[in-house]
Amino acid sequence: MRHLLNPLDFSVGEIEQLLDLASDIEKNPDRYAHVCDGKKIATLFYEPSTRTRLSFEAAMLNLGGSVLGFASADSSSAAKGESVSDTIRVISCFADICAMRHPKEGAPMVASTKSSIPVINAGDGGHQHPTQTLTDLMTIRSLKGRIDNLTVGLCGDLKFGRTVHSLINALVRYTGIRFVLISPPELRVPEYIREDVLESNHIEYREVENLDDAMPDLDILYMTRVQKERFFNEEDYIRMKDCYILDKKKMALAKEDMFVLHPLPRVNEIAVEVDEDPRAAYFKQVQYGVYVRMALIMTLLEVEKPC
Amino acid sequence: MRHLLNPLDFSVGEIEQLLDLASDIEKNPDRYAHVCDGKKIATLFYEPSTRTRLSFEAAMLNLGGSVLGFASADSSSAAKGESVSDTIRVISCFADICAMRHPKEGAPMVASTKSSIPVINAGDGGHQHPTQTLTDLMTIRSLKGRIDNLTVGLCGDLKFGRTVHSLINALVRYTGIRFVLISPPELRVPEYIREDVLESNHIEYREVENLDDAMPDLDILYMTRVQKERFFNEEDYIRMKDCYILDKKKMALAKEDMFVLHPLPRVNEIAVEVDEDPRAAYFKQVQYGVYVRMALIMTLLEVEKPC
Amino acid sequence: MRHLLNPLDFSVGEIEQLLDLASDIEKNPDRYAHVCDGKKIATLFYEPSTRTRLSFEAAMLNLGGSVLGFASADSSSAAKGESVSDTIRVISCFADICAMRHPKEGAPMVASTKSSIPVINAGDGGHQHPTQTLTDLMTIRSLKGRIDNLTVGLCGDLKFGRTVHSLINALVRYTGIRFVLISPPELRVPEYIREDVLESNHIEYREVENLDDAMPDLDILYMTRVQKERFFNEEDYIRMKDCYILDKKKMALAKEDMFVLHPLPRVNEIAVEVDEDPRAAYFKQVQYGVYVRMALIMTLLEVEKPC
Repeated sequence: MRHLLNPLDFSVGEIEQLLDLASDIEKNPDRYAHVCDGKKIATLFYEPSTRTRLSFEAAMLNLGGSVLGFASADSSSAAKGESVSDTIRVISCFADICAMRHPKEGAPMVASTKSSIPVINAGDGGHQHPTQTLTDLMTIRSLKGRIDNLTVGLCGDLKFGRTVHSLINALVRYTGIRFVLISPPELRVPEYIREDVLESNHIEYREVENLDDAMPDLDILYMTRVQKERFFNEEDYIRMKDCYILDKKKMALAKEDMFVLHPLPRVNEIAVEVDEDPRAAYFKQVQYGVYVRMALIMTLLEVEKPC
Repeated sequence: MRHLLNPLDFSVGEIEQLLDLASDIEKNPDRYAHVCDGKKIATLFYEPSTRTRLSFEAAMLNLGGSVLGFASADSSSAAKGESVSDTIRVISCFADICAMRHPKEGAPMVASTKSSIPVINAGDGGHQHPTQTLTDLMTIRSLKGRIDNLTVGLCGDLKFGRTVHSLINALVRYTGIRFVLISPPELRVPEYIREDVLESNHIEYREVENLDDAMPDLDILYMTRVQKERFFNEEDYIRMKDCYILDKKKMALAKEDMFVLHPLPRVNEIAVEVDEDPRAAYFKQVQYGVYVRMALIMTLLEVEKPC
Repeated sequence: MRHLLNPLDFSVGEIEQLLDLASDIEKNPDRYAHVCDGKKIATLFYEPSTRTRLSFEAAMLNLGGSVLGFASADSSSAAKGESVSDTIRVISCFADICAMRHPKEGAPMVASTKSSIPVINAGDGGHQHPTQTLTDLMTIRSLKGRIDNLTVGLCGDLKFGRTVHSLINALVRYTGIRFVLISPPELRVPEYIREDVLESNHIEYREVENLDDAMPDLDILYMTRVQKERFFNEEDYIRMKDCYILDKKKMALAKEDMFVLHPLPRVNEIAVEVDEDPRAAYFKQVQYGVYVRMALIMTLLEVEKPC
């Protein structure tokens, strides 16, 4: 039995297979409408996340399965002091697969050691969020036709942004990826990403402070939210959050076949006027996220692809 | 693609069609058990409302579809500052139709402008609650056999009561409707209802303070809850809330074919002893609400009536 | 129409039938996958209880039915002052059967008097939790092959433990049951259990303070959590909660065919090292709970056993 705890749990080849399946689902959704009939997913969200939770639920429902679970910790047994290990053994009696979001790093990993059903990490603290990374990869592959030989700009909070770190880790396994890391000095990627991930893999990258200058080179621009909760100082937050707002004027500097991604929710780091630009791909990304999760559920449950 | 934001979005003819469909569903529920197989409704409740939410969910399940969503804002992305416009674009990737309750007036309307799925307003602040109005119309038509030539008493909080204003707006489009508006002076219907809706449409109405006097004339008595949260003064609330309690003694004054409606929840404005009276229709009304919502979902999804 | 409000609502013969059905479901789950197609259960949890709620939901989904409801009182109409009697009349329009957990003793009983659908008491305050008792009985019967001629140890909080009182009440109806009641003096079973249940039924029992001494005699050891919320004094709680911890050393004193049950969640009254012991049956118990609830739903809905 396999789990998905870390975006790197799957090899490049396995990800290729998964994205192929997701693409086939996109093209022929009806063929997959009953492949998980009678199966149940448990969505165990110890921390609320509507988007991620509903994406998993939509994925399972699209496959003919059904859903049970909880949307926040207050309504769970965690309040009574139950350990994650015990909870997963209980949930194993109720469902065939589970998606767990937890504020503590490593909680889904701990759960997986006691689980008799596949566990999907749906986000554990600032640590990992592997289905977001798979979604990002599918979006890039679907829109650009490839995941190699691309100049990828990452903009915003590169210090705390979990999705950014995961995406970098995932992309360095492909050939010809160049990064442009766009952030204020305070929010640069952490040392270990620069040294252990980028430099040790001989990945071409540059760090810049100005989004405008970077725009013309990019094939992909990955925007991120500057999360208010990361700051203790209100002033600092206000200064920074408005520094890197993507608008029509900035979009005019970009290539015609550049695409903008964002893990959402977006607050004001992308002006609403950009939404109508055909290169704005952040809502398409949500749709790809459903297909990827459908493919993932099928893969972990070892459901045969219908013929 | 159509939405339902305001009870008046549908013409009298369209409402007639909808209620015909709802009545056919009531008579032949089995025929409709699979018409929405594979479809999903998202119930987006930024403000809790168990009754309304479960009515939509029961409706979709009765049609063979399935349900996802959230029951309160805490567990939604709203807490992270996401706009309703963004949320609906995301939800459009997860579901085929959505029912939204929101504390802010106009939120479902804003959502509908960005949505690629039909949006049903399930209550927006003190503003509109169109499926309640459709439920009220179906209840009246089912019990009285018609929606014209009726004397309709509206009793309780006529000032703030959203359902009352919607029902008046909906009923003035039928012929021969007379209103008896029964309330304490502080809670009379607002000026604009009297002038712009009743008088400008030449509708016969009278405002009275005494429920007893009004009873003998009525074909329909629509009771409403005097919501505690509308008052700042505890004393005022207590004085008023007990003024207009419907009991057996008052029921004795009414016609034999008069019916009592109430949008529920009822607190103490209808004595429990009235529940056994065959003219008490407020629980039947809940059942009609499910049929109306089934018909509405089918209509907005353009699902063919089965033959 | 029948409800399940109290574990004693079913006769010994009826329980036998129910457990036979549950055992058949365990052996042939596929045969039951569609017996409740089109049926809906409402899970009305005025007090959160993830395990119990999800067990009911899994049970209904396993039978092909679907689920609606609420997981805590905040998102229910109770906040608006609606009575349980009114809520159940409304829910009767939405679902075919309901499971209600409520902090007030007797709430499910009150609901059942107004309900037009079967009501299952899923726990009412410190009062009753009949599906836990049915689960316990099924676990004992499945593991020991019988529910008679057994020495049953009950350990921990015997004063406030609802599940313990219910289990004693249920077991005294079988022949040859002997109890060993293991608890600190402060947490002995209440007077009425000793006098009205045990002594008046001429049941053999002894009360002891030492778990070690009791171990060798037991066929079943039913452990319970010492709930922190029962104590006003922190010191007392700490002293007691660690008194009766089951560990490997204690397990070594027990028979080879003794089984350990626990209603869960477990905090620290059973050491994690015991989990791997084949006699540890508390996670199997959760699985039996799903089968029993499936059998119960079928029985109350009068669904025929498939042939």
